[in-house]
Amino acid sequence: ALSLTTLAAAQMKPEDAIKNRQSGYTFMAWNMGKIKAQVVDGTVPYDKAQVVAAANVIAAVANSGMGALFPAGTDKGKGWKDTRVKAEFFKEQDEVRKIAINYIEQTNKLQQVAATGDQAAIKAQFGETGKACKACHDKYRIEE
Amino acid sequence: ALSLTTLAAAQMKPEDAIKNRQSGYTFMAWNMGKIKAQVVDGTVPYDKAQVVAAANVIAAVANSGMGALFPAGTDKGKGWKDTRVKAEFFKEQDEVRKIAINYIEQTNKLQQVAATGDQAAIKAQFGETGKACKACHDKYRIEE
Ligand code: HEC
Ligand code: HEC
Repeated sequence: ALSLTTLAAAQMKPEDAIKNRQSGYTFMAWNMGKIKAQVVDGTVPYDKAQVVAAANVIAAVANSGMGALFPAGTDKGKGWKDTRVKAEFFKEQDEVRKIAINYIEQTNKLQQVAATGDQAAIKAQFGETGKACKACHDKYRIEE
Repeated sequence: ALSLTTLAAAQMKPEDAIKNRQSGYTFMAWNMGKIKAQVVDGTVPYDKAQVVAAANVIAAVANSGMGALFPAGTDKGKGWKDTRVKAEFFKEQDEVRKIAINYIEQTNKLQQVAATGDQAAIKAQFGETGKACKACHDKYRIEE
């Protein structure tokens, strides 16, 4: 499967790879924000269907093989804007993989727990998911 | 539920609403492209898990309540770039809703049929999904 995603990525312009990954993260963050507002901050009343839908997006994006959107040569470049990835991302493959696998697991759990409607459990798992995002950003995303 | 999404949207800057919807569509299109390459064009060998994952993204994005990302006043404005939405989108709510409901249904079917692994059926339903996207673009998206 790795060779296929590499092939698919090779056919994509660097600019489009960066646009696509920036889009995936941005759209995921919108959906994280909905869960935060409803289950953590309480600034928007809890709506189970909306939280389930948001968690489905987050898990689906996490499971979509975004590694293919980091082809060699895209450590620099512009998608919607200049990429914020650090060069280390492309050099520390084992560490990136470890972080990515944990992130996928946490988003899968968030999807499962959202379906139960147990708000306390959703809140706890939202926290774990946020930590999984942050683990990558702390090491591999340039501060703004 | 409508009032809640309106509330959530009201708290978002117009620029962010436009960025988020441009991101959702862009990421969805990347995933449509993967299905097209594997099941329609055959330029990338068919990989069931990848097609299932792509269809999961498309259905999850379609079901995520993107209507909240079109708050009043965002008929003009800049997200990642100038919005391509037409002013009619905000005036023809019944027609937009009809098109949006069909699109959600077609993406749900694409998700179901992807899970079966039946490539001929996936190809057919990919075509229906593409038509559902096009129905909206033909009426409500500015040509580039
Ligand atoms: C395996 C690494 C990794 C994981 C896990 C990860 N991110 Fe990121 N994220 C990145 C990188 C790298 C960028 C910079 C992408 C670019 O600009 O090319 C980024 C960028 C972003 C951005 C900024 C987009 C912009 O406008 O600059 C947001 C928001 C974001 N991620 C949210 C999330 C959320 C939410 C999660 C978890 C649910 C997550 N990320 C998980 C690596 C990761
Ligand atoms: C209900 C209406 C609607 C449906 C359904 C719809 N779109 Fe769109 N699409 C839009 C609008 C409106 C824009 C312009 C958004 C903006 O720039 O603010 C857009 C923009 C886009 C863009 C361009 C982003 C850019 O860079 O300008 C792509 C790609 C796209 N859509 C793909 C899709 C795909 C793929 C589907 C179906 C799986 C789909 N759309 C379904 C309304 C729709």
